[in-house]
Amino acid sequence: MSDQPSAAEEIMDGVYRALRAHGYADVTMQDIADECSKSKSLLHYHYDTKEDLLVAFLDYVITDSEARVRAHADDPPAERLAGFVGWFVFEADAADREAFHIALLELRTQGPFNERIREQLVRSDRLLRGTVADILESGIEAGVFREVDVSETAALIVATLDGARTRQITLTGGADGTDAGSEGDAETGGSTDGLPEPTYTRLVAEATLRRIVEPLLAEGVDPPSLADGIAAMTRDDETE
Amino acid sequence: MSDQPSAAEEIMDGVYRALRAHGYADVTMQDIADECSKSKSLLHYHYDTKEDLLVAFLDYVITDSEARVRAHADDPPAERLAGFVGWFVFEADAADREAFHIALLELRTQGPFNERIREQLVRSDRLLRGTVADILESGIEAGVFREVDVSETAALIVATLDGARTRQITLTGGADGTDAGSEGDAETGGSTDGLPEPTYTRLVAEATLRRIVEPLLAEGVDPPSLADGIAAMTRDDETE
Repeated sequence: MSDQPSAAEEIMDGVYRALRAHGYADVTMQDIADECSKSKSLLHYHYDTKEDLLVAFLDYVITDSEARVRAHADDPPAERLAGFVGWFVFEADAADREAFHIALLELRTQGPFNERIREQLVRSDRLLRGTVADILESGIEAGVFREVDVSETAALIVATLDGARTRQITLTGGADGTDAGSEGDAETGGSTDGLPEPTYTRLVAEATLRRIVEPLLAEGVDPPSLADGIAAMTRDDETE
Repeated sequence: MSDQPSAAEEIMDGVYRALRAHGYADVTMQDIADECSKSKSLLHYHYDTKEDLLVAFLDYVITDSEARVRAHADDPPAERLAGFVGWFVFEADAADREAFHIALLELRTQGPFNERIREQLVRSDRLLRGTVADILESGIEAGVFREVDVSETAALIVATLDGARTRQITLTGGADGTDAGSEGDAETGGSTDGLPEPTYTRLVAEATLRRIVEPLLAEGVDPPSLADGIAAMTRDDETE
């Protein structure tokens, strides 16, 4: 974000913080107004209902993701794919990012019941699968990847990374100050005894690169590094 | 379930139907009482709060899953793994099962905020990853699988299948009688134009068998069939 955010950006930033703090079901227009230091009546001037504002927020988040994808469109295909995989890694200290994604997951459960939310979810799905498909197609053309079933591979990779994220954010304790089934350990950021170590997302991201991505590489192509992929994406901001 | 279900089973069946119909956030003790033809005061006699009843329901569902896993413990390892993968396949006409899993997903978003729910989610995670790990270990011992990193593979497979399910159930329209971004198609059970065909879960299950499971097989071992895996699991009931 620039030094002088627009009013719309300030409001979206307020939605982001309010969702993190209160979750989707409980967040109110007043919470959002408080988080962006606007009046509730100003919010209602721009957005009739909470649903209108949350749909606009989903649109904003996905548009931001589209821009992040475009910013990496000219990276070499194998590195771009490692960047995509690295985008889904949540380290043990990513409590704010986890809280935001819990709120997004709550929003996602509204998909079957709310056409406007579902339209945004379908758009996000197309962006994610389309990005992986685009990376694979450029890589096949460049001789970096073997000829593979592009759309199947894209669905597999997106499902895998999404699943790891959902499991990590729902299983990790700490939001209520407790940890399930363990003594807890403040130093590991609320990790739960018995959960994968390192974090679910990092373990699965590494497995995705080694088990799914490496077999796609043409002979002689060096496997891309997850560390480089994470570094490439975290140069951008954290809201996805 | 037997012909003469116990009162507890009748109540759990009522929770299942009420969650499907109303979702987690909106379901009330009265809804559950209505679904199992009990009085609300009887429910409150056994369960102080809605939370108590839902935690008991999660416990019931996971205990049922444990029994289903045990029932297949002596199947050959490769077939058992195909059965596990097949367990996560939702066909396009599985609206009831999808509605139930949307309610479960809502419940899962409470994990970070509710220790008792999180304890059950952690237990379910251990069951799922433990089952895959157990299958892999028996298969390695029997010479059916190569020596692989068992716990990494288990996390990868569970994340992949869970992610496909979450994407399918949140992206598929129909619960509000509409379909996002498409004209809709009643014959395909509310599938949305632009989503993977066949369903997300079937596409990813097939990719999981071919891309993740087949490379684990020892030389000369025939790849297991997804169709057989699905058939083995659907002989049991549909509530998981």
